[in-house]
Amino acid sequence: MLGTCLENVREKSPLVHSITNYVTVNDVANAILAAGASPIMADEPSDATEITAICSALNINIGTLNSRTVEAMFSAGKRASELGHALLLDPVGAGASTLRTQTALKLMREIRFDVIRGNASEIKTLALGSGTTHGVDADKADAVSDSNLAFMAGFVRNFARSTGAVIALTGAIDLVADGETCYAIRNGRPEMGRITGTGCMLSGIMAAFVAANPGNVLEACAASVCVMGLAGEIGYSHLQAHEGNSSYRNRIIDAIYNMTAETLEGGAKYEVLR
Amino acid sequence: MLGTCLENVREKSPLVHSITNYVTVNDVANAILAAGASPIMADEPSDATEITAICSALNINIGTLNSRTVEAMFSAGKRASELGHALLLDPVGAGASTLRTQTALKLMREIRFDVIRGNASEIKTLALGSGTTHGVDADKADAVSDSNLAFMAGFVRNFARSTGAVIALTGAIDLVADGETCYAIRNGRPEMGRITGTGCMLSGIMAAFVAANPGNVLEACAASVCVMGLAGEIGYSHLQAHEGNSSYRNRIIDAIYNMTAETLEGGAKYEVLR
Amino acid sequence: MLGTCLENVREKSPLVHSITNYVTVNDVANAILAAGASPIMADEPSDATEITAICSALNINIGTLNSRTVEAMFSAGKRASELGHALLLDPVGAGASTLRTQTALKLMREIRFDVIRGNASEIKTLALGSGTTHGVDADKADAVSDSNLAFMAGFVRNFARSTGAVIALTGAIDLVADGETCYAIRNGRPEMGRITGTGCMLSGIMAAFVAANPGNVLEACAASVCVMGLAGEIGYSHLQAHEGNSSYRNRIIDAIYNMTAETLEGGAKYEVLR
Repeated sequence: MLGTCLENVREKSPLVHSITNYVTVNDVANAILAAGASPIMADEPSDATEITAICSALNINIGTLNSRTVEAMFSAGKRASELGHALLLDPVGAGASTLRTQTALKLMREIRFDVIRGNASEIKTLALGSGTTHGVDADKADAVSDSNLAFMAGFVRNFARSTGAVIALTGAIDLVADGETCYAIRNGRPEMGRITGTGCMLSGIMAAFVAANPGNVLEACAASVCVMGLAGEIGYSHLQAHEGNSSYRNRIIDAIYNMTAETLEGGAKYEVLR
Repeated sequence: MLGTCLENVREKSPLVHSITNYVTVNDVANAILAAGASPIMADEPSDATEITAICSALNINIGTLNSRTVEAMFSAGKRASELGHALLLDPVGAGASTLRTQTALKLMREIRFDVIRGNASEIKTLALGSGTTHGVDADKADAVSDSNLAFMAGFVRNFARSTGAVIALTGAIDLVADGETCYAIRNGRPEMGRITGTGCMLSGIMAAFVAANPGNVLEACAASVCVMGLAGEIGYSHLQAHEGNSSYRNRIIDAIYNMTAETLEGGAKYEVLR
Repeated sequence: MLGTCLENVREKSPLVHSITNYVTVNDVANAILAAGASPIMADEPSDATEITAICSALNINIGTLNSRTVEAMFSAGKRASELGHALLLDPVGAGASTLRTQTALKLMREIRFDVIRGNASEIKTLALGSGTTHGVDADKADAVSDSNLAFMAGFVRNFARSTGAVIALTGAIDLVADGETCYAIRNGRPEMGRITGTGCMLSGIMAAFVAANPGNVLEACAASVCVMGLAGEIGYSHLQAHEGNSSYRNRIIDAIYNMTAETLEGGAKYEVLR
């Protein structure tokens, strides 16, 4: 079933509009292409609102937000919502500054997101109004582990229920939940945290997966998380001696590009908690 | 002769000012360096207008345009025009939004471009006032093929005549024409479409080629198209098992870096239509 | 001792806020991660000022500056200064435009920088009020060589004395000086000049080194220059046939990632001039 989600992306090649930060935007575009979809970026409000109309997904990422791009996020977000597009929020750095936290919360109030994807600190900030943070990385105190798995799965399901969105809380163990069902996913490698943009790339492809699998948002999100984590494992296995985080970034995108439904089905490591 | 165009870039190392999108800007800079020229980016209007004066080419790319950068495009474009610099327009996404289409058309009215380089949908939009589009990619319906080659060559020559610019319409078959002569170029690989920024990179190096080959704009443009396509072929031949679009991007820029006049002369695949 | 500086970065993993250009920002982030620190970027004034407070270093790079980001540089710079953070200025393109030169000079008047890092043309512009320039690259006439080494070391020491900052003038021979002591460093390769962003990456990791080595700014800066130059040598040694500047960029970041204190101590090539 996860493999079918990937095949649908390849077959439908949805056009994904991203309003995203300029740090990792190139990797986001190449990751979306690697997954089989098409990227487009526009962040001037009038342009973004018109461009989003020809797409089938909108990926809003608040890293390096500014007053102009925030305006674009709201106007394009409302337009995409009216058109029934797949809508994803990546609240980069929520909890690290007032502007980021308040922008994410206001976006959630005014726009119906299909998915909210962030690290543990970002999701806690949005759910509880507070959270610790280490810049754009999650604080260790917030991590999902075997010892708090049941509790955190419940927390994520509750937040999904209250927002009406699928929640994807990603880290060493990834949780992807709607109000009833939670996938706990154990793909990936710790070295992915030494590359900038793995979270941003995941959000980009997740938006494509949701667009290509309407009516099956939860599984589409879980499939994209498995794709990213498994690509991290495969990319790592191809690293040569002396290679480091820059080559690893390339090899992860390459692994998404070469991922097949069979590889995904065979390599996905998850359990379903209800 | 194409080889001489490349050697002139290497020898003169023109300074190329790009006002370009933030998605592919790093690849544009490295591609310009790989070709043997020097890149500089500036997009605050006052800064861009002054920076462009110390350069010998200006590459205007409207992907991720905003009101500030559009102002910089006009003011720097006019200054570069007064100074007789090589001037290139890359109308990314013309046809996909009103702002992009109108900005491209207004730039063409107010600034004398040496070259306009885009995909089939973008060029059709600018020439005919309409065109189909698939975001920043060309629509299949607009593609140049063997069956419509003579017609499309005529179309491009006509548009070159009416604008006074060389027109480079790139795709599976690339057409590069002035009002009388049209190169039809068959270098490249379809997998290049799975990398973001191959068109943007081509525009960057094309501006360098025009600057380094004054009085020979048509051939300089054709040479840069052959360089990019041939680099796509060579880069592809060096892809390892398990590599994908991210490594392919690196290998294409690497192939531009290592391109010699002999390699270019030996590998260029084109015919000249009159 | 240089090795200890690197180990301190790895151990403390300082959070480095960069207000930097969009051309090389992704490489800056990955280089900072490769060195063992954590990057964050924010350039909306209110956001930048709040984000900088949770960091321990601020790296201000004026490439692709605009009116909004300049405001962020001043407000975040003043806040970071009040908080005693490591503060670095990279005056990209000073001398190439009025806005860049004046912004750099005004930042130096209003903010206490620990380090100013630039190429010879940029540093001469700031020290003497004039300088030649080749865009964002140094003019050959300004280069440090064996024949002018003693003179240039004196110049850099004087500028360090008058500004109160460590001055890092980087090129074929790098000079890193406070008012009394000057390191002359001979690591690196000329091919690094064919990659965009090696200077920007160095500034990013230098800010991390200063933050992780308080009270030892001069040596921390010298250590980061040796790391970058040595990574350039190591990365070059791993280049495969047919690879060029794009792969070289990746291999340099990879070499920073894999750099150990022992490798650094064994490979650093410098003399200390007093």
